[in-house]
Parts: sequence; C-alpha cells; structure tokens
Amino acid sequence: MQLTYHTDYALRVLVYLGLKNGSLATISEISGHFGVSRNHLVKVVGSLSHLGHVETVRGKSGGVRLSRDPAEIRIGELVRCTESHFNIMSCFAEGEENCAIAQVCKLKGMLRRATQSFLDVLDEYTLAHILRNRDELVEIIFVGEHGMRDA
Amino acid sequence: MQLTYHTDYALRVLVYLGLKNGSLATISEISGHFGVSRNHLVKVVGSLSHLGHVETVRGKSGGVRLSRDPAEIRIGELVRCTESHFNIMSCFAEGEENCAIAQVCKLKGMLRRATQSFLDVLDEYTLAHILRNRDELVEIIFVGEHGMRDA
Repeated sequence: MQLTYHTDYALRVLVYLGLKNGSLATISEISGHFGVSRNHLVKVVGSLSHLGHVETVRGKSGGVRLSRDPAEIRIGELVRCTESHFNIMSCFAEGEENCAIAQVCKLKGMLRRATQSFLDVLDEYTLAHILRNRDELVEIIFVGEHGMRDA
Repeated sequence: MQLTYHTDYALRVLVYLGLKNGSLATISEISGHFGVSRNHLVKVVGSLSHLGHVETVRGKSGGVRLSRDPAEIRIGELVRCTESHFNIMSCFAEGEENCAIAQVCKLKGMLRRATQSFLDVLDEYTLAHILRNRDELVEIIFVGEHGMRDA
C-alpha cells in the first residue's frame, strides 16, 4: 500500500516552501534539494497552485511560495486532493465489473471505513506540525548541503 | 492509494472458499468465477496456505479449502501479511535515502499512525463478517452464473 509520487512530491514541496518563510523558491532549486525530476515538480506545483496552497511569480527573479499559513494546510485534505483515486481494491474503480460479487460484497464498506480512518488521522495534522522542528530541517536542507544558510 | 492485486485476490479466494462450507474448490474453478488469471491464483493460494488459512489436497479430485473457521481470519492481519510492504511514501523503503530530510521529518510518524489506523479498522472484521450475507453471495457466485446451485 502506498501513496502516489504526486502526493509524495507535493508534501516535500510544501515542507520546502514552509521553511523558506514566504520567500520565493525556484522549481530547479527544490528539484536539486530533493533529487526529484524538475518535470514532475512542474506538475506538482501546478496542482498545489490550483488548490490555492502556493502562488507562482513569473519572470527572471520569479518562483513559487506558500500562499497560506502552514497551520491552514491540513495533511488529510491535501492527500485527498493529490491522490488520483482511493480505489483501494480493484472493485472500487468506476465501471469496473471484474469481481463477480462486487454488488453485494461487504468488504467494500470495511475498506471504505479503513481508508476514512487513514485520512482522519492525517487530518489531525497540518503543515505547521511537520515544520515544528524547523531548525533541524533548515540545518539539513539549507546548511548541511552547502555549508551555509541560504534560507 | 491502493492495495496490491495479491491482497485483492487473497480476499476473493477466502470469500469463495468460505462459501464452499469446507468442500474443495479447484484453482481453475475460482479463476473462472472471478475472471482472475490462474497463475496469479496459484501464488495467492500458496501464500494463504503458508499463512495456515487454507489447505490443499493433491490428486485428481484434489483442490483447496479453508483450514480455519472464518471467524478466526482477521482481515487486518491478513492484509498485513499479503501486502508486500507498507512504504506509504518512498522515504519508508529500507535503504532509501532519496529524501534529504528523511532523518528528521515528522511526516513519517504521522503516516505510520494513519496506516496503523487503517489496519486497526480492518482488524475489527473477520472473514465471517464478509460472509454474513452468505445467501446473496451464493446466489451470485453459484446460482446466477450457472442457473443451478453447485456449492
């Protein structure tokens, strides 16, 4: 069981931008820090912008930054939006008729409750909770790699 | 977010065998009922046998049957065993160092709690709960397709 890379990268981008304290970051910069393909991140930033979590500034000195307080970005809600689906078993997929008993199977309801519970736990947290150990994170991302603080 | 096909098929095999009331089923028979590849099911039955949930009888009139009371087969416990991993994000994978902040990131703990909650809900159910509407299931699997009851 795993989340998509889209969600994975969306969370990393938000953490990175949260550590920048409102200053702009370029996608190339985030890509370099996390070792994640620039093309993937372009799509992820597009999604986050669409969700209203980040804003992009065009131009030579442009970039991307958080457009919300980290305490307002709820993790469960984010995951609900960035995951392409929660078809936890194949019988959940729309128009999927590949299980003979799909219409009467009680398992679907059980799995739906379990998925809800997974997301409910994540809804207890916001981006601000992930950023609580800001100093440690800044040390690793901005100091550790370059020997200097560039945040 | 989704479970592997291995788990998906393991659950279907258990439901099918649960409806057979202890009589033997062949893998070809299950494969035909669910429209699932025979090769996949051979591996799934191997796992279920290894876990002690089913027993296989060799020979011409052989097959596979449940070796436990359905009330003893807990769904969360089964999913824990049939899923190859619960690396809900890439940073969970052993030896995976692809996220710069993995060592200090609080997100890992949050996702671990959420996954635990997912499995805890499934642990509230056993195979017996899925088989509660036995009549409806039997109607679809054994009567609907062939116009006669062969369970």
